[in-house]
Amino acid sequence: MKTVIIGGVAAGLSAASQAKRLSPESEVIVLEKSGDVSYAACGMPYNLFFKEKPVEKLYALSLETIRKERGIDYRLRQEVTGIDPVGKIVSVTDLATGRSYEERYDFLVYATGNSAIRLTAPGFDDSDVFCFKTLDDTRHVKQFIYDKAPKHAVLVGAGYTNLEVADVLTNMKIKPVILEKAPTILPSFCEEARAKVMDKVKERGIELLTGVDIAEKAGGEVRSSAGVFPADLVVVAVGTRPNTALFAAAGGELGTAGAAKVDRFLRTNLDSVFAGGDCAEHYVRQLGANSYFPLGPAANKHGRVIGSNVANPDRMMEFWGIDQTAVFKFFELSVATTGLNERQLQALGKDYVKVAVDSPTRGEFPGGSTMRVILFCQKGDGLLLGAQIVGEDVVAKRLDVLATAIYKQMTVFEIAELDLAYAPPYSPVWDPILIAANVAVKKV
Amino acid sequence: MKTVIIGGVAAGLSAASQAKRLSPESEVIVLEKSGDVSYAACGMPYNLFFKEKPVEKLYALSLETIRKERGIDYRLRQEVTGIDPVGKIVSVTDLATGRSYEERYDFLVYATGNSAIRLTAPGFDDSDVFCFKTLDDTRHVKQFIYDKAPKHAVLVGAGYTNLEVADVLTNMKIKPVILEKAPTILPSFCEEARAKVMDKVKERGIELLTGVDIAEKAGGEVRSSAGVFPADLVVVAVGTRPNTALFAAAGGELGTAGAAKVDRFLRTNLDSVFAGGDCAEHYVRQLGANSYFPLGPAANKHGRVIGSNVANPDRMMEFWGIDQTAVFKFFELSVATTGLNERQLQALGKDYVKVAVDSPTRGEFPGGSTMRVILFCQKGDGLLLGAQIVGEDVVAKRLDVLATAIYKQMTVFEIAELDLAYAPPYSPVWDPILIAANVAVKKV
Repeated sequence: MKTVIIGGVAAGLSAASQAKRLSPESEVIVLEKSGDVSYAACGMPYNLFFKEKPVEKLYALSLETIRKERGIDYRLRQEVTGIDPVGKIVSVTDLATGRSYEERYDFLVYATGNSAIRLTAPGFDDSDVFCFKTLDDTRHVKQFIYDKAPKHAVLVGAGYTNLEVADVLTNMKIKPVILEKAPTILPSFCEEARAKVMDKVKERGIELLTGVDIAEKAGGEVRSSAGVFPADLVVVAVGTRPNTALFAAAGGELGTAGAAKVDRFLRTNLDSVFAGGDCAEHYVRQLGANSYFPLGPAANKHGRVIGSNVANPDRMMEFWGIDQTAVFKFFELSVATTGLNERQLQALGKDYVKVAVDSPTRGEFPGGSTMRVILFCQKGDGLLLGAQIVGEDVVAKRLDVLATAIYKQMTVFEIAELDLAYAPPYSPVWDPILIAANVAVKKV
Repeated sequence: MKTVIIGGVAAGLSAASQAKRLSPESEVIVLEKSGDVSYAACGMPYNLFFKEKPVEKLYALSLETIRKERGIDYRLRQEVTGIDPVGKIVSVTDLATGRSYEERYDFLVYATGNSAIRLTAPGFDDSDVFCFKTLDDTRHVKQFIYDKAPKHAVLVGAGYTNLEVADVLTNMKIKPVILEKAPTILPSFCEEARAKVMDKVKERGIELLTGVDIAEKAGGEVRSSAGVFPADLVVVAVGTRPNTALFAAAGGELGTAGAAKVDRFLRTNLDSVFAGGDCAEHYVRQLGANSYFPLGPAANKHGRVIGSNVANPDRMMEFWGIDQTAVFKFFELSVATTGLNERQLQALGKDYVKVAVDSPTRGEFPGGSTMRVILFCQKGDGLLLGAQIVGEDVVAKRLDVLATAIYKQMTVFEIAELDLAYAPPYSPVWDPILIAANVAVKKV
């Protein structure tokens, strides 16, 4: 049995590892186009701050461990140029030598990730314009920062990535200006959540402008509908696009957002070809359907499922799905969401109640702050449909309680009955989640 | 309608507040023996450290707010000396004036809390021997510390209270020695959890001795079976006992651990008499029975239920129960438990699997550490029966996910499918809970 995996970051390496774990005698080849082994992409913004910490610290495992301990034939700088789904053969070019060769497969795993969308406006292919998608991007930005000591950065796009980057750059004494095309930031968050983020933007003196059209970058300036901004450094993070050209060229069917269409077993329409991670669709439990939600945890889980399915093709497991849980850090704030967001609720025509409740995060113990818990629950029965928390102190792992509640289809009546951990260093005697649930109970 | 409440701390004030909220026209009298309004008892150890922060900072509300905004007739220094459950009258002594009077009631709420068990060995009624149960205790300890500048403390008992006190005293440069009668500490934690606490004891250079019999305190020394220890200050925390003498004298029936026996509506055997908080039993959902688990959250919840039931006696609500969730801080460690503990599992004859898994707490982001997640799950179906986490970083609110899982009777198979929040400042891509669940899945 021979499995070939195209792409060796999160889903690819997870699939390879699981396949070898369950079927140690099988042959598993990973063909990774870049020169980097699997790395923790979400840690990239934070690496910038630490001059002496090489970006290779983000590697999940060393090449030696992957090869020797896990027994995976992991090959760097190998570009797959074509897939023959009938002959079950991929064409490969070794980017180091230029040599081309073919690999036959029994199973093919398509795990090519996604790419940053680039701007086509003039000047945006200059060498001081960066994306922040790959480890190579990070390498380039980091070297630029430490070599050129930029003072002013223009960040195009106000999504998670650039908000994290703004936080990091500010700590590095580089002043960011954030320019966003849309009329509001963070469309998957509701107004009550966004307001907290905007308060922090103001408090930190960050210039963040919305509804801005970018005209061009000329030398050290970005020109836009909102004016001209000095830009020693530009980071563009305006969205991503699944890397599916190769897959589509082989007859692979695309689904939501141009991602590889997969069934619950992560099989594509091509015989013996699986797809997973940021290039594939993600099954959302609450929707009972696939969506596109490219984040690290789902990529790792996809990989595990695919690895299991190529090892046990007669006893496949379904990918169990996601609940759209996500979190990012913005200065002291943590900004977190799970379940359906308000736009989805409206699009689905749900009759829902929203409560937004501010609470202290601790008892009588230093270091506490406040957080805003937002619950979306079904009118009438109080079923929790979605939740967002924005605030300081422990936010992400409180959100996890609500992610668990969504997984188990709990109502706010049930959430109000939870027995959560209390001691003054960790929580008020009524945890913010219980306080919010008690407010919701009165309104559903 | 007139409700009299004996005791005005957690359960008492919660009951009074809820009764007035739901039935604003009713009369609610709280008779509190001490001179303090309701306070956050769990915050007491941490107050010691802050010389300039008066212990009254721990008050939940001011007397004026309780009286004016909540409309509660809250009376301090009022000792109830007798209950006539037939005539529905309590006898009261005003400790300030010595005057005695009676109050008739329609409903009586018995919320007298519990008391520290004292040692009878010689010398343990000296003025430099303290308990740590009331705000007055805290006042006395604190004044003693700042007046006398003790250098050596002997802490008798190695429960949550004295472990918290040892942490605080160490920060105040007072060297604690902990003497415990039992052969091991923390009986409700399993060996794998205790080991982490003992590692911290060692790392911090704390002397903690078990299996110790206390002989006497003589002057500045505590003499014991383990030797003689200098003691400028002694704190005894060897357990508590529900304050039920008055209740029992009126014919009130006692249950588990000598606590007031209550039904699911928190009614006692006495007509129109409710009991709640640390003087009453607590319904444990997993046991389907009452136990004694006197902690702040349950007291507040008891109070809310009782307040609701006296306001709506024709439409009473049940106390929904607890899952034995608890957490305490011990230096950098958080030590947390939920669900059935190992002794209970053994006593119940459960066929269970235990896994103890150490994981990193964060991704590539500064400040991370490790934690140990311990899961007890039912052999065969993987039902989560109990969980404990000991470690640094965010422990308590991770445990809450497992407390939620226990409430919803989740299996480790389901827990492994949770979509938990990931970003490097908060979690590795596989949260420690998911890692532990995945280990458990392979063993059940």
